[in-house]
Amino acid sequence: MKRLKETILNKGSVVGEDILKVDSFLNHQLDIDLLNAIGKEFKERLKDKKINKILTIEASGIAIAAITAQYFNVPVVFAKKVQSKNLDKETYKTEVFSFTKGRTYDVRVSKKYLSKGDKVLILDDFLAKGAAAMGLIDLVNKAGAEVSGVGIVIEKGFQEGGQLLRDQGVNLHSLAILDKFIDGKIRFID
Amino acid sequence: MKRLKETILNKGSVVGEDILKVDSFLNHQLDIDLLNAIGKEFKERLKDKKINKILTIEASGIAIAAITAQYFNVPVVFAKKVQSKNLDKETYKTEVFSFTKGRTYDVRVSKKYLSKGDKVLILDDFLAKGAAAMGLIDLVNKAGAEVSGVGIVIEKGFQEGGQLLRDQGVNLHSLAILDKFIDGKIRFID
Repeated sequence: MKRLKETILNKGSVVGEDILKVDSFLNHQLDIDLLNAIGKEFKERLKDKKINKILTIEASGIAIAAITAQYFNVPVVFAKKVQSKNLDKETYKTEVFSFTKGRTYDVRVSKKYLSKGDKVLILDDFLAKGAAAMGLIDLVNKAGAEVSGVGIVIEKGFQEGGQLLRDQGVNLHSLAILDKFIDGKIRFID
Repeated sequence: MKRLKETILNKGSVVGEDILKVDSFLNHQLDIDLLNAIGKEFKERLKDKKINKILTIEASGIAIAAITAQYFNVPVVFAKKVQSKNLDKETYKTEVFSFTKGRTYDVRVSKKYLSKGDKVLILDDFLAKGAAAMGLIDLVNKAGAEVSGVGIVIEKGFQEGGQLLRDQGVNLHSLAILDKFIDGKIRFID
């Protein structure tokens, strides 16, 4: 997606060997106009799928999912990382290992909001080693629902998540795929 | 706001003395159509203000802020509760006491995304004792920016947050104000 790649080149910055900072437009400050372009792009790529729900994970996925849901006319469900006393006791639960935090945490969705027969689009901002995406797929499977697609804004093509999902036959759409950073430079894989 | 109140009456549920569960449409599953109506309503109420930024706090505020931002044509910044290695070191920081979690946590915004001269609309899903809203106001003040308004979807009128903000002269807009629950029934204050 050309506009996204241009924004990444203009406003993203590389930190160390494997971090791309995009906090000026994607995960701290949000460029709502760009999010709309992203939502339209996901719809265009998945227009033949009968998606009836979008699933994401707090917090960075929520804005992408909410804006994109306008193009699909479906509700969003965001999986929760923290146990809240306002969350139902009856939940689907999976474990996700966070490489940035070095620990495993539980991710939950109330059983009320994922059901057998649902055709689910999973959305997230980044795909790196695939832990969060695999966790969300696990939640959908536990509910007996179907993963119609996985939409990712930025895939780190030099980490294994994308390959892992494609090898499993997941209908993966990454709008920008990063190649390995060399000398701190951002390049994309076509 | 009539539609919001109807949705709360039809889909909300009271738990104990002071919890209103709205997870079917506002903070776990998201009714995007309702969020658009909410965004339009905030714009209508604040159309005379020259707002150039919306500030919220992760996670439940993000969807409301992202959808509402479309009507103001401004970026969103969401304050972070968790220290992330992707967050800048230069941040404005405030402390917020969580009554549901019984502890104080730090809330941060990168100094890059709140500046002197910004006219900020603060948005959140709930206003109860006012801790989160006061924290966000503190961040705006620390940046030398101006709070043009605080927009709340559901105010618990039987807790002190609303009064606290109004007493300070904050331009507060709560779209639904809950009266004390009696026998588990939901009623609104006009």
